[in-house]
Amino acid sequence: MTDFRFTPLAKTLPATVPFVGPETQERLLGQPFKARLGANENVFGPSPAAITAMAEAGHWMYGDPESHALRSAIAAHHDTTPDHVVVGEGIDGLLGYLVRLFISGAQDNVVTSDGAYPTFNYHVAGFGGTLHKVPYADDHESPSLLFAKAAEVDAKLVYLANPDNPMGSHHSGADLLAAMDALPAQTVLVLDEAYVDTAPEGTALPVTPDDPRVIRMRTFSKAYGMAGARVGYAIGHPDLIGSFHKVRNHFSMNRAAQAGALAALADQAYLSEVTARINASRDEIARIARDHGLSPLPSAANFVTIDCGQDGAFAKRVLDGLVSRGIFVRMPFVAPQNRCIRISCGTAQDLAAFEAALPGALADARVG
Amino acid sequence: MTDFRFTPLAKTLPATVPFVGPETQERLLGQPFKARLGANENVFGPSPAAITAMAEAGHWMYGDPESHALRSAIAAHHDTTPDHVVVGEGIDGLLGYLVRLFISGAQDNVVTSDGAYPTFNYHVAGFGGTLHKVPYADDHESPSLLFAKAAEVDAKLVYLANPDNPMGSHHSGADLLAAMDALPAQTVLVLDEAYVDTAPEGTALPVTPDDPRVIRMRTFSKAYGMAGARVGYAIGHPDLIGSFHKVRNHFSMNRAAQAGALAALADQAYLSEVTARINASRDEIARIARDHGLSPLPSAANFVTIDCGQDGAFAKRVLDGLVSRGIFVRMPFVAPQNRCIRISCGTAQDLAAFEAALPGALADARVG
Repeated sequence: MTDFRFTPLAKTLPATVPFVGPETQERLLGQPFKARLGANENVFGPSPAAITAMAEAGHWMYGDPESHALRSAIAAHHDTTPDHVVVGEGIDGLLGYLVRLFISGAQDNVVTSDGAYPTFNYHVAGFGGTLHKVPYADDHESPSLLFAKAAEVDAKLVYLANPDNPMGSHHSGADLLAAMDALPAQTVLVLDEAYVDTAPEGTALPVTPDDPRVIRMRTFSKAYGMAGARVGYAIGHPDLIGSFHKVRNHFSMNRAAQAGALAALADQAYLSEVTARINASRDEIARIARDHGLSPLPSAANFVTIDCGQDGAFAKRVLDGLVSRGIFVRMPFVAPQNRCIRISCGTAQDLAAFEAALPGALADARVG
Repeated sequence: MTDFRFTPLAKTLPATVPFVGPETQERLLGQPFKARLGANENVFGPSPAAITAMAEAGHWMYGDPESHALRSAIAAHHDTTPDHVVVGEGIDGLLGYLVRLFISGAQDNVVTSDGAYPTFNYHVAGFGGTLHKVPYADDHESPSLLFAKAAEVDAKLVYLANPDNPMGSHHSGADLLAAMDALPAQTVLVLDEAYVDTAPEGTALPVTPDDPRVIRMRTFSKAYGMAGARVGYAIGHPDLIGSFHKVRNHFSMNRAAQAGALAALADQAYLSEVTARINASRDEIARIARDHGLSPLPSAANFVTIDCGQDGAFAKRVLDGLVSRGIFVRMPFVAPQNRCIRISCGTAQDLAAFEAALPGALADARVG
């Protein structure tokens, strides 16, 4: 071991990562997956217009560091101004910048739900903050528990995904807005709306972008089908959004991805088609679950979480059985949500492969 | 102004950015540039194999968070192991992670050359470090001045680009290795070799990747012609490289970019063709400079820095005259290097546009 003079914080950070990618699992298994249903990607892919735009963007040129055209289009889409919008390398990247802007040590408190999106927790740890967790309530993230804990610990940030990952549950935007009456002054709500495009009408939080209480995160990775492109954005008060420019990597954005996202946003007809296909796929996953004696949970996202009816150890055996049979899926990792497995929407062929593998996985799991 | 509880450091950071992009300048000018010769991009573009790979990568899937295939190919290319290689969203992104790993406040000292790559300085400021600058020596970054200052201030990091940007000068790898005898123990040399692919044989630092004294940065943005893709990598000791995984955005990499870089690396014949075209373009830029009474500096990079023969104010007027005539170029920003303008290599058409604009720009500059 050489003696690199890392920061005191860097020395204490673990080498663990939020997610092991399917490619790593394929290398360990020694074969490719038959169906890729674990990362909540969108197999139906982006708009043809986006694919064309990405091909024609000119790979030799740097992307616009201001993402001006894309930011302007996003602003118009949300009836606001570009100063209310920051574009980044996925919501993951934006969460990292946001945490960096607010959190610089253990004195800075943050609240999330136990079992919610782990990449947010990774960033909080990475900047030395103190993370407080509240439980889910009936498989929903609980605004009241979250905001009460935020008040108790004087949290700078509180994270909430709506719809939620990994459970697929959601709150109406109106209910969430009402619950925000209990959000402490000076606590910023980090509202991850990655899955809002597949949720029922009325799920998006109905606030003005000038509301300083909340920053909303969106992505082109889910309904827009461009996970590989790495384009996310945040909407919020200009003082908050403007602060990102002080710390972000100004040349982080892939130029083709900027052009693709711009074209994807303009093709709302395609988005409607794809969300219809996602709806149908959710129904089919639910049918498969029920036909095999399992209980699908209602989903507002591009995946269905299936209650396997026993404990976390059982669900883990079901998951392992699916993975060993070539079906990439993931599962919640905190009890009692970990009684479930989580199946991303897929093509008819993907879901047929899932259905073919499920009986064997269940039989193996029951043997234990 | 709302009262966001940013960190003490974030509150003090300026809103300035390292570079204003050409798209912003075009918006201000109200018209597109005729020639884009300011960002040291490579207009000859990537290998056709890379373009195909990017089109076929599957935009709906996340990139491999480990960049395993690309890292393995890079390791093989450099005769080392994947544990010695980290891939990131451009050298800019990797510099940000590196600074974050070492610098957490004003007690942490860093050394660079005054007028060298500003994005490194941006990251040092962004993590609160203390930046010390030494002057250039005869238009070269000076290893002896840099390392002496590093010893004086007990620097954690010292930054050196070889070849240098913005001057295009270089040291032989052997000379640099010899100079490293004066590098203080526990100071890590951050060696930016972004432009090494267009430099004379023998410019790359001849060290084993296990040498803990240095981390070398490379990119697909310059000779490989993929600036828009945002793919850089660093080579170094596994303990140093491994630390990046504790803080980096594991899902930052564009999937198509990963595939494109892999294909580009495999097409070394194309790289040779392109570097020959870059060489020819350098010669043409030098000829144009001389034909107009200016002095081109020798260049090991994909640009030529031209001594305008007077002071920084004069060179700035030449630059402004070129920009107003539709030619995007940049210039050094510290005296005495700012007597120059910097012209990226371009196509014959680009350089003809530059040559057509130059007399008017010079005439305007002489009027003052």
